[in-house]
Amino acid sequence: MNQSTNTQSLISLLKKTHNAEWEATPSSRDAIRWLDDLVQFLFPSNHLPKSSAYEGILKKNQIDLENILLSYLEPSGIDITGVVADFYNSLEGIYQNLRLDASKINEYDPAATSVNEVIVSYPGFYAITVYRLANHLSRLGIPVLPRILSEFAHGKTGVDIHPNAQIDVPFMIDHGTGIVIGATTIIGKNVSIYQGVTLGALQVAKDLAEIKRHPTVEDNVIIYARTTILGGDTVIGKNSVIGGSVFLTKSVEPNSQVFNTHQLRILNRQEAS
Amino acid sequence: MNQSTNTQSLISLLKKTHNAEWEATPSSRDAIRWLDDLVQFLFPSNHLPKSSAYEGILKKNQIDLENILLSYLEPSGIDITGVVADFYNSLEGIYQNLRLDASKINEYDPAATSVNEVIVSYPGFYAITVYRLANHLSRLGIPVLPRILSEFAHGKTGVDIHPNAQIDVPFMIDHGTGIVIGATTIIGKNVSIYQGVTLGALQVAKDLAEIKRHPTVEDNVIIYARTTILGGDTVIGKNSVIGGSVFLTKSVEPNSQVFNTHQLRILNRQEAS
Amino acid sequence: MNQSTNTQSLISLLKKTHNAEWEATPSSRDAIRWLDDLVQFLFPSNHLPKSSAYEGILKKNQIDLENILLSYLEPSGIDITGVVADFYNSLEGIYQNLRLDASKINEYDPAATSVNEVIVSYPGFYAITVYRLANHLSRLGIPVLPRILSEFAHGKTGVDIHPNAQIDVPFMIDHGTGIVIGATTIIGKNVSIYQGVTLGALQVAKDLAEIKRHPTVEDNVIIYARTTILGGDTVIGKNSVIGGSVFLTKSVEPNSQVFNTHQLRILNRQEAS
Amino acid sequence: MNQSTNTQSLISLLKKTHNAEWEATPSSRDAIRWLDDLVQFLFPSNHLPKSSAYEGILKKNQIDLENILLSYLEPSGIDITGVVADFYNSLEGIYQNLRLDASKINEYDPAATSVNEVIVSYPGFYAITVYRLANHLSRLGIPVLPRILSEFAHGKTGVDIHPNAQIDVPFMIDHGTGIVIGATTIIGKNVSIYQGVTLGALQVAKDLAEIKRHPTVEDNVIIYARTTILGGDTVIGKNSVIGGSVFLTKSVEPNSQVFNTHQLRILNRQEAS
Amino acid sequence: MNQSTNTQSLISLLKKTHNAEWEATPSSRDAIRWLDDLVQFLFPSNHLPKSSAYEGILKKNQIDLENILLSYLEPSGIDITGVVADFYNSLEGIYQNLRLDASKINEYDPAATSVNEVIVSYPGFYAITVYRLANHLSRLGIPVLPRILSEFAHGKTGVDIHPNAQIDVPFMIDHGTGIVIGATTIIGKNVSIYQGVTLGALQVAKDLAEIKRHPTVEDNVIIYARTTILGGDTVIGKNSVIGGSVFLTKSVEPNSQVFNTHQLRILNRQEAS
Amino acid sequence: MNQSTNTQSLISLLKKTHNAEWEATPSSRDAIRWLDDLVQFLFPSNHLPKSSAYEGILKKNQIDLENILLSYLEPSGIDITGVVADFYNSLEGIYQNLRLDASKINEYDPAATSVNEVIVSYPGFYAITVYRLANHLSRLGIPVLPRILSEFAHGKTGVDIHPNAQIDVPFMIDHGTGIVIGATTIIGKNVSIYQGVTLGALQVAKDLAEIKRHPTVEDNVIIYARTTILGGDTVIGKNSVIGGSVFLTKSVEPNSQVFNTHQLRILNRQEAS
Repeated sequence: MNQSTNTQSLISLLKKTHNAEWEATPSSRDAIRWLDDLVQFLFPSNHLPKSSAYEGILKKNQIDLENILLSYLEPSGIDITGVVADFYNSLEGIYQNLRLDASKINEYDPAATSVNEVIVSYPGFYAITVYRLANHLSRLGIPVLPRILSEFAHGKTGVDIHPNAQIDVPFMIDHGTGIVIGATTIIGKNVSIYQGVTLGALQVAKDLAEIKRHPTVEDNVIIYARTTILGGDTVIGKNSVIGGSVFLTKSVEPNSQVFNTHQLRILNRQEAS
Repeated sequence: MNQSTNTQSLISLLKKTHNAEWEATPSSRDAIRWLDDLVQFLFPSNHLPKSSAYEGILKKNQIDLENILLSYLEPSGIDITGVVADFYNSLEGIYQNLRLDASKINEYDPAATSVNEVIVSYPGFYAITVYRLANHLSRLGIPVLPRILSEFAHGKTGVDIHPNAQIDVPFMIDHGTGIVIGATTIIGKNVSIYQGVTLGALQVAKDLAEIKRHPTVEDNVIIYARTTILGGDTVIGKNSVIGGSVFLTKSVEPNSQVFNTHQLRILNRQEAS
Repeated sequence: MNQSTNTQSLISLLKKTHNAEWEATPSSRDAIRWLDDLVQFLFPSNHLPKSSAYEGILKKNQIDLENILLSYLEPSGIDITGVVADFYNSLEGIYQNLRLDASKINEYDPAATSVNEVIVSYPGFYAITVYRLANHLSRLGIPVLPRILSEFAHGKTGVDIHPNAQIDVPFMIDHGTGIVIGATTIIGKNVSIYQGVTLGALQVAKDLAEIKRHPTVEDNVIIYARTTILGGDTVIGKNSVIGGSVFLTKSVEPNSQVFNTHQLRILNRQEAS
Repeated sequence: MNQSTNTQSLISLLKKTHNAEWEATPSSRDAIRWLDDLVQFLFPSNHLPKSSAYEGILKKNQIDLENILLSYLEPSGIDITGVVADFYNSLEGIYQNLRLDASKINEYDPAATSVNEVIVSYPGFYAITVYRLANHLSRLGIPVLPRILSEFAHGKTGVDIHPNAQIDVPFMIDHGTGIVIGATTIIGKNVSIYQGVTLGALQVAKDLAEIKRHPTVEDNVIIYARTTILGGDTVIGKNSVIGGSVFLTKSVEPNSQVFNTHQLRILNRQEAS
Repeated sequence: MNQSTNTQSLISLLKKTHNAEWEATPSSRDAIRWLDDLVQFLFPSNHLPKSSAYEGILKKNQIDLENILLSYLEPSGIDITGVVADFYNSLEGIYQNLRLDASKINEYDPAATSVNEVIVSYPGFYAITVYRLANHLSRLGIPVLPRILSEFAHGKTGVDIHPNAQIDVPFMIDHGTGIVIGATTIIGKNVSIYQGVTLGALQVAKDLAEIKRHPTVEDNVIIYARTTILGGDTVIGKNSVIGGSVFLTKSVEPNSQVFNTHQLRILNRQEAS
Repeated sequence: MNQSTNTQSLISLLKKTHNAEWEATPSSRDAIRWLDDLVQFLFPSNHLPKSSAYEGILKKNQIDLENILLSYLEPSGIDITGVVADFYNSLEGIYQNLRLDASKINEYDPAATSVNEVIVSYPGFYAITVYRLANHLSRLGIPVLPRILSEFAHGKTGVDIHPNAQIDVPFMIDHGTGIVIGATTIIGKNVSIYQGVTLGALQVAKDLAEIKRHPTVEDNVIIYARTTILGGDTVIGKNSVIGGSVFLTKSVEPNSQVFNTHQLRILNRQEAS
């Protein structure tokens, strides 16, 4: 079997697959450019537009979103114009929520020196920003695009928040890397989460798609690093503190404090070897 | 001691080091461009080429790989033409395996809505894609380049799969961040792995380079989030399910189910303070 | 309420906020470009400059740093010229330390095949590189910029080292993803850290900003994957080995070996269901 | 006098000038990007958009124009929304005129092999395209931008058509370089012009700004290469042919044929030296 | 008539036209990138490739040309593989001719200080380079692409040489702007041409496409600035010198010297007004 | 003879030539980037820098020039540091001259509506800008770079001013395309030149390199379009007006007015055919 035979066969296969699947997804490059423009508009980190340019930048961003949606949703019957109008109508609210998030991070994190530092440098804040934008699109019934946005933020920050999760305001993530927040998670006001926390499902199976599989976290809860909380019926009662490296699959009462009681064996290395 | 003295001394040092080391590595920028082009060719997420352009794009990709290999391996005695031909001859097989991987993810993950969504947005799928390409290069005896590719995917997704690992088809990664799969790991068919799983070595020492140091995972195994499995003699028997946050350094029988039995201490916060 | 009312209100809000906050931060794009140029200068992975160009490249990099600092620190009273001169005077020392780091990684990691491979492909080495540069800026009293640099490296590698941490030479990170090293951590010579390790605070509260909240790790310590060590008074004595998935909030003596003693429950899946 | 004194003085001067003049001009980079997008939309030479994308591309182009105009005309009292609407309402007519221009070039030029070749490769056609767009903006009362567009086309093609000139349809330019068509020129239907032709003013003085200073060329006229026709009262009657290298400052009747009668002296080089 | 009616009508028109015409032309962007790469390969003005990279760069350039040709000529029956092979087989000859051209320019132009300066800075030399490449493609029967290349050079330099012209070696152009050399021109060895020279047709009409319409210039002729020579039967005999601003439509004998005998009227400005 | 033989032979030839010639020229890409930065600094057409950034931008531009000069002049013995200091010390004077040039264009051209329009859109003004910068470098003894700059401007505007020409202030170019001003030309104050004007040499021969070969134009002269003035002894006396399409090889007295007296033959086309 020679090379060109193989190559031809691959090419035939690709063409068949590409044509069949192509229409159902937006360009990921366009999606990410739109996101970048919008985030820079809300939280400019490179240069400030002229005062008179704000309105035009926003209008252009709106057209870009409309074009992205049209590129793969035109035959879907979704009211794209309505979705876009609703999204931009809601943008002020999202922005105000994000400022509350940033303020809370600055207020709690001893390593933060200003809200500005949080906004320009914290990956956790970037992840929340993309989540709030993707979540709103998701709630408006848009498929695929919210996942492209959230997985882009996931790649950039290590924080994987499914756009369908419900997260109230303010919300704080510190250090971020390795956080997973599943699609049916519900998180109350004023919750703080540290690196490596998973809010996940007890079991993973396709026929659970319509069921609440991820935990509920009530107001004013803190969850320290590397803790795993699983299950759709698991509720972390308000004002609780969950320590680091805890593995929880059951609900805890409000005002609880949960500790890991790992036993360690400590030897002198002479003994150990 | 003034500045220019220091600067001159740094520059002398750099020149000496650079000249000595330079010839042994490919341009990482060229390597990543080649990878991007190839992944876009297999799974186009931005635009579909004209039907007549497929063959030319593939040919160009082939020349790019050949040029990258020539740039640092010419004096090595490796048969570069042969390696390149073999790689592209194998590409159809790799592509078919990747489609099986994507289908499996879609089949198991309740959050996935289509194979397409998996392909365009799942970091886990991207990591598997880069692994299968880098692994083939590695098996053809190519040094350095496979690591550049796999570490690029690692940076982008948080999934660190050494190109020398052996992973059968289909293979599923969900959420991805924090997964480590060591160089001598062997993974069977139809295995699923969640975020934060390590398949690692018990000890790390240079003189172990030639020894199997990482586990074997047999067919149909599921390993939930944050579990650590260590050791070259550790075998996870087929059809087993390893729960989340487990720490395993010994083999388990086929058909086992392994649970973490962490004890937690739960106090009312009044008591706790 | 129609769309343009909402939009106008958002725009007014943005203008007010942006003008108030704008002056206090550098352009993140300029900051990252400067970092990229400097890292490529020290460890060229794409092409080697002409021998006669080294001095000019360095001078240009110096002007770029000076311009970045001027853009947000001019009214601060910081002696920017002095800071820049000191930074470039110290660069040779930083470079020599980084070569020691790279050599150690190559020496210990059985998967590494050369120092060059480490330099061009290891995310852990990249994270250390950015840390050593950001740390020096931080020690010179520069705000914000060091965080932008370290969080950029965090996003790229999953390794979050606060620029204020003190880390001696050589230092080794392997696999990297999910490592967190807090602002007041002190790490001695010849320490090795694996993926998922946290060196963190026991509690997080803003009024602790001036207090040592993160551990001290003495010389020749190895900390394996997913281990969490918390607290400003926690000291890991020299020559100790801390096993994987350990959760430590107390000091250990020099020469200790610490094991995780998790109990697992292992069932046959027939029984389990 | 040392260097920094000079530099400081230059910088003060620049700041004063820039601030005074800045508000009155659009970004030339934005202007040219807008033009490129629009020309690519009308005459795509790189790739064809999806059928469903046409409308969105046009809408985006419209926002871009609006933003450019707002950036320097907001305080002018010009009805920018109205101007933009009128421009895009007229675009179909402009496009149809341009196709007539291209067809005529293909019909007359023996070197052209298809209308397509004319559209993708003829600088003369590009110059006419930019003229028809800039002229429409100019007629809508827009200052500065039309000149930026026409001078950009001038730089690219060597054809300098003032946007205020009136040129009927179809119009043919061949070879193009060195053509100058002044601001008050009037050109009828079906006129052809070759390289190096000037339709200029007899005298140049600022107080002539409001007066017709450039010629009128009636329908069906051909003007061959390097001919100069000057003066606001000069009328080239319909159906005339003006030969190459003619210098004309007076009107000619309809149906005229005008020749250059240069005398040449021809010597044998033996005699000449 | 409202705006969207107009816009819809334009869009329908564009779609109809684009679909009909699209297949017959290459991407001009790809064409120009290919040209830039090839010219940089022959006359590098930015950096020198590694010695081992030359062959790969050339191979890649070859694939790029093949892909461009395939994109619009696949159904044409042209032997694209053969054309590409022939082109690259002839490249050494073209390169040697271009070096002779550059040497001649340096030898004759008192303003040139080295062959290198000619190669990196002379637009005339750039125009000859593109002509020799485009001409070879044209001789191999390739349509459209040679015109895209030559009109790109025309835009960049003001020198318009039709790719079908026949120009022997060496050939010298100085100052360049405004030169037009028609499709059926024949130019001998060692000819020099200055700015504004036209070698054109006496009449322009489509049915002349198959006839020689442009002059023949024999060996060792010099044609000074702004001279126009017209007609397919016009032959400038060898060793002749044609002065500046001459208008010639008839042949001249070998060894002739032709002068312009313009009479000027010179007045004192007092008298003149 | 097969293809690879030919290719190998070309590659050998290129390597030999490139290595021999390479060291003597700067990167044209770097040169043009430096020029663009400097022109944008003097005449910003895209965005205004922060007030505090001016000094840094200028310093960076200075380093860029120094690096370009070092890249090809290091072994030349030229005092590069001195040249760079002198150039930037003179920049304020050059800038003031350029503002006088722009004011004059605005004052004389009835088509200009403001100095700003001239600065952002007139190719003639761009050509003068590049000339004044290149000329200063040339006077400081810098080879090659000034030609790269002036030929870049030539390509962009069709105006070819040799950097060694001496042109006083103010100087006005309108329409520009096709202007040639030779290396030994001397132009006085307040001179205006229109499209297609050549100030050239009577004869072109290498051994004239050291001799004044191009005309002298005294103060307050106007030279209209397409006029050619040749010869190193030709002096256009002050206050003269030279009409369009004149061909002059002798001096004219101050206060002269020179007309073209071309005779035309005008026929009715009936007669003519």
